[in-house]
Amino acid sequence: MAGGDLVLLDVFGSPYAQRVRIALAEKGLRYERAEQDLGAKGDLLLRSNPIHKKIPVLLHGGRPICESLSILEYLDEAFPATRPLLPPASDPYARARARFWAVYSDRLHVCGKRLWLRHDSEEVEPEARAEMVAMLRALDAELAGKEFFGGEEGMFGYVDAAAVPAAAWFLTYERSGGISVAEECPGLAAWAARCVRRESVAANVYTPEKLYELAQEYRQWVLARK
Amino acid sequence: MAGGDLVLLDVFGSPYAQRVRIALAEKGLRYERAEQDLGAKGDLLLRSNPIHKKIPVLLHGGRPICESLSILEYLDEAFPATRPLLPPASDPYARARARFWAVYSDRLHVCGKRLWLRHDSEEVEPEARAEMVAMLRALDAELAGKEFFGGEEGMFGYVDAAAVPAAAWFLTYERSGGISVAEECPGLAAWAARCVRRESVAANVYTPEKLYELAQEYRQWVLARK
Repeated sequence: MAGGDLVLLDVFGSPYAQRVRIALAEKGLRYERAEQDLGAKGDLLLRSNPIHKKIPVLLHGGRPICESLSILEYLDEAFPATRPLLPPASDPYARARARFWAVYSDRLHVCGKRLWLRHDSEEVEPEARAEMVAMLRALDAELAGKEFFGGEEGMFGYVDAAAVPAAAWFLTYERSGGISVAEECPGLAAWAARCVRRESVAANVYTPEKLYELAQEYRQWVLARK
Repeated sequence: MAGGDLVLLDVFGSPYAQRVRIALAEKGLRYERAEQDLGAKGDLLLRSNPIHKKIPVLLHGGRPICESLSILEYLDEAFPATRPLLPPASDPYARARARFWAVYSDRLHVCGKRLWLRHDSEEVEPEARAEMVAMLRALDAELAGKEFFGGEEGMFGYVDAAAVPAAAWFLTYERSGGISVAEECPGLAAWAARCVRRESVAANVYTPEKLYELAQEYRQWVLARK
């Protein structure tokens, strides 16, 4: 197993860190986790990502790589003997498309928070619900009935690793937002269920039920501080 | 000259579109420009980028590629016989680093607008000025006295193409923000001057003086509508 000189500065619950851990697991790369305290950022994090001071940061032979999607590209390039995440170099169009949808998946978290946290109201904003449904449909259309968004040969790939931390939140979006992913987008719901059972994902992401509980707890804590 | 089946949906003044035109020029790729009216978006743009409805979009053989930095990666991958923008595949760390700084350069426009547009005040916000100086210094440190940020062999590359549309704005940042790029970051100021004289850049970006004029005109127009 390659990757003995890899150290990941992360926080277990961060969806951006989860992308990287899932990618490392899919590639079978061994690494050391260094859980960070974001309330009291340590010297190693500040030195490794002096510009943004954010996790995840992957250290490879001591050299820091920042930004979750950039780390995924790096893993493909630095460990070419491992299973690739992006579509093959022979298909630049598929690679560009994968990059597009991976970045797009970032938005799920932003919109999802409007559904489950709802800072100012007990009511779900209709705009947030509509936006979430539109995003899920867009992803469903891109999935187009395939098993995975797919890297090489339709296997679990770059977009899957990028989007699956959000897929674990679908249950929370459903219960908090009053939407049904299964009804709106049956293909995407099946993809999410398939992904969260996957070993690389199950080991690195909270279960959908656990996430729903954590979201409720966090919301109560926020409301109590008002 | 390759690239006869390339069509670029863009707007001349957009710094994101400028990145792509500069990259195409550096690579010697021929393409057709289709200037878009963002006030009345045409059918081709809406079909090509249905998610974001934004320029630039590059059509290659009719297939759309969106997002400026993703288009730059695509050009390297789809036209491997042209001069590459990213560092070589043999140096994944340099590639990751180039991706980091290219994304970082997006922020210059956001902060720059706070300096020259100043919606609510005649005064420049001290925070915006401090943020701009910090960003310029960070880029200057990354440039580290080199001629270009550099792709292969230190030539004009990915970060240069990504950041140079902002470099043409340095004069406007200086006059509007009361800063001196040359004093704060002499290396970066020399890089900007070197870049804007470059043929690929001069043909695709307004001159610094012209940009300053346009910024003043736009600001007057915005203030008059208040």
